[in-house]
Amino acid sequence: MLRVGVNGYGTIGKRVADALAAQPDMEVAGVAKRTPNFEATAAHRAGYAVHAVSDAAPFAEADVPVAGDLDDLVEASDVVVDCTPAGVGARNRELYEAHDTPALYQGGEDADATDASFNARANYEEIARGDAEHVRVVSCNTTGLSRVLTPLEEAYGVEKTRVTLVRRGGDPGQSDRGPINDILPDPVTVPSHHGPDVNTVLPDVDIDTLGVTVPATLMHLHSVNVTLGSEVDADAVRETLADESRVFMVPEHARVAGPGHLKELAKDAGRPRGDLWENCVWEESVAVEGRDLYFFQAIHQESDVVPENVDAIRALVGDADAAESVVRTNRALGVGRFDSPTNHVATTGGAAASADD
Amino acid sequence: MLRVGVNGYGTIGKRVADALAAQPDMEVAGVAKRTPNFEATAAHRAGYAVHAVSDAAPFAEADVPVAGDLDDLVEASDVVVDCTPAGVGARNRELYEAHDTPALYQGGEDADATDASFNARANYEEIARGDAEHVRVVSCNTTGLSRVLTPLEEAYGVEKTRVTLVRRGGDPGQSDRGPINDILPDPVTVPSHHGPDVNTVLPDVDIDTLGVTVPATLMHLHSVNVTLGSEVDADAVRETLADESRVFMVPEHARVAGPGHLKELAKDAGRPRGDLWENCVWEESVAVEGRDLYFFQAIHQESDVVPENVDAIRALVGDADAAESVVRTNRALGVGRFDSPTNHVATTGGAAASADD
Repeated sequence: MLRVGVNGYGTIGKRVADALAAQPDMEVAGVAKRTPNFEATAAHRAGYAVHAVSDAAPFAEADVPVAGDLDDLVEASDVVVDCTPAGVGARNRELYEAHDTPALYQGGEDADATDASFNARANYEEIARGDAEHVRVVSCNTTGLSRVLTPLEEAYGVEKTRVTLVRRGGDPGQSDRGPINDILPDPVTVPSHHGPDVNTVLPDVDIDTLGVTVPATLMHLHSVNVTLGSEVDADAVRETLADESRVFMVPEHARVAGPGHLKELAKDAGRPRGDLWENCVWEESVAVEGRDLYFFQAIHQESDVVPENVDAIRALVGDADAAESVVRTNRALGVGRFDSPTNHVATTGGAAASADD
Repeated sequence: MLRVGVNGYGTIGKRVADALAAQPDMEVAGVAKRTPNFEATAAHRAGYAVHAVSDAAPFAEADVPVAGDLDDLVEASDVVVDCTPAGVGARNRELYEAHDTPALYQGGEDADATDASFNARANYEEIARGDAEHVRVVSCNTTGLSRVLTPLEEAYGVEKTRVTLVRRGGDPGQSDRGPINDILPDPVTVPSHHGPDVNTVLPDVDIDTLGVTVPATLMHLHSVNVTLGSEVDADAVRETLADESRVFMVPEHARVAGPGHLKELAKDAGRPRGDLWENCVWEESVAVEGRDLYFFQAIHQESDVVPENVDAIRALVGDADAAESVVRTNRALGVGRFDSPTNHVATTGGAAASADD
C-alpha cells in the first residue's frame, strides 16, 4: 500500500486526494493546507489527516483538528503530490529532497524545475524506467493534447499540429478573474507556451499553438488541426480516438452544445464534483480535408490531470506498467463511464469510499 | 449625385445611411423601417426621410413623420441598400426588380439569392465590369478574411488557410442572445460556412474554417493560420498588411489587450458609435514558422462592412474604379485615422454632416 501525501488542498489537491483514496493500492497519508477555509473543513470531514503548512492556530479557531505540520506529512509519505499554486511547488522541492521523498508537481511549475514531465499516454514507460524522482504532471491543456496526438501519431503519423486554445478565464471558484465580455489574445504573441509544453512529453511533435481567453469558467475548448502523414477517412479517425480510454467521443445524438451540457451530463451521471476526466471530442466535428484533420475537444481544467497524477505515482514508485496502471486508475474512478452514479469517489467521504475498494 | 435608399435601419442600416451621407457623390434618398422604435426616432432626428415598410399609423403615434412607403423609397432611389434581417433581403428582391432598381444585400443572405458577392479588396473590378444588378456584400467575417487573404495571395501566394473564428454571441444591443459562461463549437461540424463564403469572392483560396461562439458582444476574434507559398519574414508580412488601408496594425506600444481596448480607442478618437471599420491585426501576434503564418485579428461585426457597402454602390452604378472608390470612401469616413475626433460622420446628424462634405 503506497502512502501518499497531498500538499495543497485546492482545486486539484482535493480531487487528487479523493482519487488516491479510491485506488486499491494507495492510501492518503494526509493532506497539507495553508489556510483553514471551507476546503480545510471539507478535508477533515472527508476523513483526511489535515496538516498545517504554516500557523496551526487558525485551524483550531476554524474547528479543524491538525494532525501535524508539513514536515510530518512528508515524513509519513512514500511519495508526495504537490498541488500548491504555480511556482510554490518548485520552492517545496528542497523540503521533499531533505526527506528523500519523491514528489509529483503540477503543470503550473516550470518544466526545468523538475527532473521530467509526465503524461500517462505519452511517456509513462520512460518515466517508470528512468531515474526521475521529481516529476511534473503536465497541465490540463497539455494533457488533453498529448492524449490525442499520441494515438494519431501511432496510427497515421503527425506532420504538423496547429491548435487554437479557447481558454476559460478562471475556474468556477475564481471569482477574482476575468475577462468579462471580451475575447483576449492570450498570449498575444504566437506561438503560445502550450506547444513547447507538449514537447516536454512528446519531443518530436511539430506543434504551433495560439491562446485566446474568454468569459467562461466551465472548460477549455480546443480547435484542433493536425496535418496527418497520410490521407485518412474521418470515420477511421473517430475509431482511433474512440479506442482511447481517456477520450470521450461526444455522440451526435446526445445534442451536447458545449461545456455547459457536458457538465450537466457528468453531474447527472453522479460524477464527483461533476468532473470530466476525459477529453471530450465532438464526434460530428471530426473532419478531414486532404491530410488535414480537424476536430473540437473540451478539456475540464479542474480534473483531466487527476487520473494522470494517480498514474504518475505508479510510474515513480509503483510496479505497474502503463496499461495496468491506466486500467486500475480508470476502474477505481469510473473514467469512461457515464451510465449511472457508479463512481467510487464521492465529493465528501473520500476516505470512507476508499475502504469500499 | 447618386440617390441611395436604405431599407432597414438597424445595426447595419443606420451605419450605412450615415456613411452614404458623408460621401461627396451620394445622398440618402430616405430610409425604410418596419417598427417605430428608438432607431426610427433617431433616423428622423438625423434628417433622413423615414418610410414605413408596413403600417404607418404606429409611426405617427411615436411622433415619427412618415415620408412614404417602401415603394415610394425604391422609386426615388437609383440604388437600394437592403439592410433588413437575414433572409428578408432575398424576399425583397422582387420589389426592387419591379422598379428596375439595382440593389445591395447583406452577408446574411444566401449567396445564391443574388447575382454576385462583393468585397472591395477581392473583386471590385469584376463586379464593376459585370452585369450583376443584385449584389451581396459579404458578411463581417468574410470581409475581414478577404481583406488579408487578397494581399497575402498577391505578395506570397496562399497555399492553404485555416482559421478559428471566435465569434461574439450577439451585438451589444442583442440582449436576447447567448451564450453565458460557455464556449460553444458553432457550428459543431467542421468546416464552418465561413470558408465557402470566402470562396464566393475569392474562389481560388483553399480555406478551412472552424467557428466557436463565446459570451462577448464587442467584436469577433480570428485566430488565423496561412500556409504561404514561400518562406517569408514576419516583418515583411507586417509591412504587407500595414500597406492595406483597411487593416489597422495594432501597435505593441498601445498595449491593447483585446476588443474592449479597441472599442475604447475608437471612442476616444471620436469615431461614430465607436466603430472600427478596419481589420484590427495585433502587430506582435504576426509570427512565421517555416511557411506557416499566424496572427490574431479582431473584426467589428457592426461596422467593417460599412465602407464595403459604399464601394459596392460605386461598383454597381458609379464610375469610379476600385482604388478611386476606396480612397473616396476612406477619406469621407476617416478609415485608418485614429488621431482625433475628425470623422465626418456623427452618430446623429448624418444628413447635416453630409452637407459639410
